[in-house]
Order: sequence, then structure tokens, then C-alpha cells
Amino acid sequence: MGLFDYKALQNFVKDVFIQMGCPSNEAEEAAEVLVNADLRGVDSHGVARLHGYIRLWEEGRINAKPDIKIIHETPSTAVVDGDKGLGLVVAPFAMRIAMEKAEKVGSGWVSVKNSNHYGIAGHHSMMALDKDMIGWSMTNASPLVSPTFSKERLLGTNPISIAIPTKNQPPYVADFATTTVANGKLEVLKRKNEEAPLGWVQDKDGKGTTDVDALKKGGSMLPLGGSREHSGHKGYILGSIVDIFSAVLSGANYGPWAPPFVSFLPLKENPVGEGLGHFLGAMRIDAFRPAEDFKSHMDNWIDTFRKSETTSENDKVLIPGDPEREMSADRKANGIPLLPPVVENLGEIGKKFGLKFQDYFTSPQ
Amino acid sequence: MGLFDYKALQNFVKDVFIQMGCPSNEAEEAAEVLVNADLRGVDSHGVARLHGYIRLWEEGRINAKPDIKIIHETPSTAVVDGDKGLGLVVAPFAMRIAMEKAEKVGSGWVSVKNSNHYGIAGHHSMMALDKDMIGWSMTNASPLVSPTFSKERLLGTNPISIAIPTKNQPPYVADFATTTVANGKLEVLKRKNEEAPLGWVQDKDGKGTTDVDALKKGGSMLPLGGSREHSGHKGYILGSIVDIFSAVLSGANYGPWAPPFVSFLPLKENPVGEGLGHFLGAMRIDAFRPAEDFKSHMDNWIDTFRKSETTSENDKVLIPGDPEREMSADRKANGIPLLPPVVENLGEIGKKFGLKFQDYFTSPQ
Repeated sequence: MGLFDYKALQNFVKDVFIQMGCPSNEAEEAAEVLVNADLRGVDSHGVARLHGYIRLWEEGRINAKPDIKIIHETPSTAVVDGDKGLGLVVAPFAMRIAMEKAEKVGSGWVSVKNSNHYGIAGHHSMMALDKDMIGWSMTNASPLVSPTFSKERLLGTNPISIAIPTKNQPPYVADFATTTVANGKLEVLKRKNEEAPLGWVQDKDGKGTTDVDALKKGGSMLPLGGSREHSGHKGYILGSIVDIFSAVLSGANYGPWAPPFVSFLPLKENPVGEGLGHFLGAMRIDAFRPAEDFKSHMDNWIDTFRKSETTSENDKVLIPGDPEREMSADRKANGIPLLPPVVENLGEIGKKFGLKFQDYFTSPQ
Repeated sequence: MGLFDYKALQNFVKDVFIQMGCPSNEAEEAAEVLVNADLRGVDSHGVARLHGYIRLWEEGRINAKPDIKIIHETPSTAVVDGDKGLGLVVAPFAMRIAMEKAEKVGSGWVSVKNSNHYGIAGHHSMMALDKDMIGWSMTNASPLVSPTFSKERLLGTNPISIAIPTKNQPPYVADFATTTVANGKLEVLKRKNEEAPLGWVQDKDGKGTTDVDALKKGGSMLPLGGSREHSGHKGYILGSIVDIFSAVLSGANYGPWAPPFVSFLPLKENPVGEGLGHFLGAMRIDAFRPAEDFKSHMDNWIDTFRKSETTSENDKVLIPGDPEREMSADRKANGIPLLPPVVENLGEIGKKFGLKFQDYFTSPQ
């Protein structure tokens, strides 16, 4: 597995987006969002997905030159029409509006329609940290998840990210799918030839199964909690709230109508809205209490949890964001590991657009 | 088990609060919130808890005549100081402020300190429904829950409620503890002499256990998800977000400092804030899109989920709020069932305040 410099990787992705027709500043931002997933260890949402965006663009489902705009607003809220743009560009646009509103009236909340996959939720929520704001980010996604007692796929893995500023501690950054596990974990188990624990997936008849291929056989993922006995209905609630805030509030497609990311799956007929939806928010800390007070108490909160007595000597109590931050620091320093098929795929993408993938990495660092 | 008319029960509770010194309008609201828990089937948070509030008042931890006020605000946010008032009164006060702000600038967010137990989360979020707003309600609570890999009790069952308006369908009302189950479920199992499923609680050494008495033996409750394998860390994230929004943002006590509801447990020395914290919010639907459009799509969302194919003939896909609404209709019509020890306890409370509990129910209905 080769290691690839993240800045060079960003440059390559940026040039691909420019070749697709994206304006240079948008291509740059999209590349940054995409590679941030690789940096933070969410490999399934990083450059391995670049070809997916390209196929959607080839199918006309992604618009490289979108006219992203506010179509309705109040002092603290807005709805943004993404004009079929890359979610990687639409979401930061919406997040900036949320932050501008928070600057003026204390908080800002933006629901987005007519967008596409927006990369990792955490990238957008974290945009608020530097401004001493709490950032929120949610999105609906391709339907793969069954609500409790259903065997239909009605919800996506619908992630929630909330980023909270701190003083001397690293920031608190929650970023999680509202299913028991994200799809990528099943792929990891499959590669290791292992079974999934019960509570992760169900088969096509709605029975819990340990089969890591259940999804390919018509099964579905389970909401956080898993079985009814373990309160899977609460995960269903979480996923549905994300769906409603992202899509029903904005006028995007919700539930089973959420457009699939993979271009070989057709869009549903009779859509109930436009594209995919997101929900971005920002709350200014000092709209509640002085930012320094809040941040000192956040440090104390984190310190208290980190130092609490563990269940075994080898465990430690983590703070949301710890693993991703450590991963990011390591990968920034040492490069991003990419599997051979991903490298090959990036090479092919380069060829398609007249770019030489390997050339981005030949200069001495 | 006797059945008790809910309005008579409210009158009794109201008179108790008046005898405690509460202003009449606040006593009435507090009684309504408390009995709403019994109506909605959350028996653990209803009149069975009245004596708990009284003991806290006797200990000087609840102020019957609070000066509840805004201590900081922006157009879309506020912090409210509850002045040690009943949470049953402080939370609706804060929710009304959130709704006034939503009326003016699209959304309103109020973090509350110096409060106490606020009854069921869902009562407060539902206040927004009539006004075509989405209501939010969260609170921190007595520490009983361990974060993943810890054996200390650092979080409460920290519930989240979100209420969403609809057109012809009944409203969507989510109201759930961020633990696998609420405390009351353990008590139900204990009465039936049954064991708890793994993933609900852990023993004092942090090992998963099926012992329904684990809490009494120094164990703790587990966050939604349960074990690490089933993503209990996501429940820990949810509980911690509720804690931070309710208490760190307002200046209340957070984490292990959250004041216990039971008066026999002492308050922690060196508190990090004042009292318990809540977080209330309101978003005006038409701050995003026309309310009629949104509500029609919510009806379609609900209809789609309700009609989806079920895992077995006997199951049905529920919409958040369904069970509580049905329970409430039944209990409004037929009376609230109270266990004999609860009735006895209410009789004793009456005596203490010169009220005859049974007299409230003697008039023919």
C-alpha cells in the first residue's frame, strides 16, 4: 500500500474537478473536503469515491458550474438550492451562510436541497470552530437502512456531526452515522473473512444476520441500537430526524426517494423533491456566555471524562474527535495510504482528463 | 390498581404546589407537565415523583417562588437563570422565549441553568406544534451512565425530544433517553423477576451484566448502543452533546456534577455551575418553506414509513409519538392507573399539606 502526500493528492483532485468544468476556487474547496476524509481515516468517503462523483457528472446528475443560491431566508434561517452542484461545494457554501447569520443574530440554520454527496459531515461542522461557534452538519443519503420492524430500505446512514470549540484541549468533534456502523465496516470484515456481529444488518426478510454480504442479497443496515430489545428504534428516530431536517425542510428528496450515490442505480420515478438534502448550523458561543468561560469549562469537561477510571488498564476514555485527529496528524506527516485498486482507479481518472496521476508525486518533498 | 381521572389528579398536584408556595399559575403549569407524563405512559416521571420534588423543596434545593429570568440574549438565543425553580415551570418559560424568538427571526435557542428536573422532555418540545414550529427539548440529569470504556457515572439518561408538525397525520414526536433504556425499564424487569438483556447496564467493574440491580451495586447504565461492538460510543456522544448544550452552554452543572434528583444524595462539593441545565429550541417551519408544503410532505413521509413492508405480520412500523399518543387518549378517557404505593404516597403528601387526596375523586364523573 503506497503512501501519498495529501497536498499532492488534493492538487490532483482539484485538477480533475477543474477538467470537469468546476471553477477553480470551487474545485479547490471540493478537493480539500474530499481529501480531508482520507486524512481523518474515513477512507470510504475520500478519493476512493472520486470516480463516483465523475460518473454522476457524466450522467448529468452533477452540475460542475452550479448557481448555488439562497431561495428563502429569515435572519436566522435559510434554504439553499444547490443547483445539482457537488455537495462538496454546496455544503461549505451553506455553512458559511449559517455562520454569517450566527455572527449577526446568534445562530444560523440552513437546510439545503438539490445537492449531492457532501463528503464527511465533520468537515463542514468544523468550519465553525475557528470562529468560536458550535458547528452542526447532517445529510440524508442513499436508502440502505430499515426502520424498526420494516424490511424496506427507507433511510440512509444519515450522519450527524457537531463540532464544539475548546480552549487548550483539542476541539470536541462528533461525527457519526446513525446506523450501528457505517457501511465501510462491513467491507473491512469481508476482507478479513469475518462475520458481522448481530445488530449490524438484517437479511431481505428482516431477520438479523451475521452475513457481511446481506446488503448485496437484498437485506438492509440496522439503525443505531440494532434490535428492538437494544432500542434500535432510537437509531431509527435519529436517522429520520436527519432525513426530515435535511430534506423535508428544504424540499429535497426524503426517505426512499433520496437519490443513490451510485450512478448505476436509477433515480426513483415521481421524485418528492430535488436532489439530496443537508442541514448545516452554527451557534455563536458568546450568544450564550462569554466564549472564554465556555471554553475553559469545555476543557474541564474533557479533562474529567478523559481521566475517568477505565474498565481495564488497556482502555482509555476517548473524546469525540480523538481518533480522527490523531489519524489526520499521522497522515499529514507520513502520507495517505491508498490501496492498489484505488491508485489504479485514480490513474484511469487522470487519463480520462489528460492528467498524469503519478506526476503529482514525483517531485522531491 | 385504581384508575384516576387526570384532571382531578392535576388539581390535586396543583394544590400541593400552591401549598408549597408556588404562584397559582405556575402551580397549574407544573401540575399539567407532571401529569402529562402519566398520560403519555412515562409513569416514572409523573405523580410518582411528586414526593421527590417536595423533598428537594424541603431541603432548600427547589425555590417555590423563583425569579426566572433571561440573563443574556441575542435575537435568536438566550440563557435563562431558573433561580432554583421547579424545572416543570422553568422549562416552559424558556420554551416560550425560544418560540418568541422563532416568531421574530426564524429560530430561537435557549440554554437554561439553575433549574431542576423538568418532567418529560416531550411536553416542552410539543409546545411548538400549535404554532407550526419544530420544537426541541433536552436536559441533563443525575449521573448514572458511564461513557464507553469508563466505569464511572459521568452522564445522565439525558433525553432528547423533537416535535414536528404535520397536516392530517398526528404530529411526529420523538422523546427518548440517550441510554439503551430508561431507568424505569429496569424496574419493570425487576418486578417480573427477569434479567436485563446484555447492553443495558454494567457492573461496578465495568463489565456488561444482566443483573437488574446492577445500579444499586455500584454499576452504571450504558449509553444507547451498549457495548463498543454495537457502537455504544455513539450513545455516549449523544448523551454528552445533551450535557454540553444544557449545562456547559448555560453555566449549569455538567457531567458528574449534575445534581441528583433524590434528596438523600448530597450535592457534589465544588460545583462547576448552578443547578441542572436544559436546552430548548424552536424553528418556525415557514422560516424554511411554506408551512402547508412542509406539512403535506410530512404526511407523505409518515404515510410511506407506516405502510412499509414489515418483518412479520404482527409487527407494524411505528412513527415516533404513536405509542404515547395512544396511551394518552386511553388514559384521558379511562383514567390513569396508579399503583397502591403511589396512591398511598399521594395520600401522605396530601396530609402534609392539609389536602384530602381521595376527596378530589369523589365527585361523580
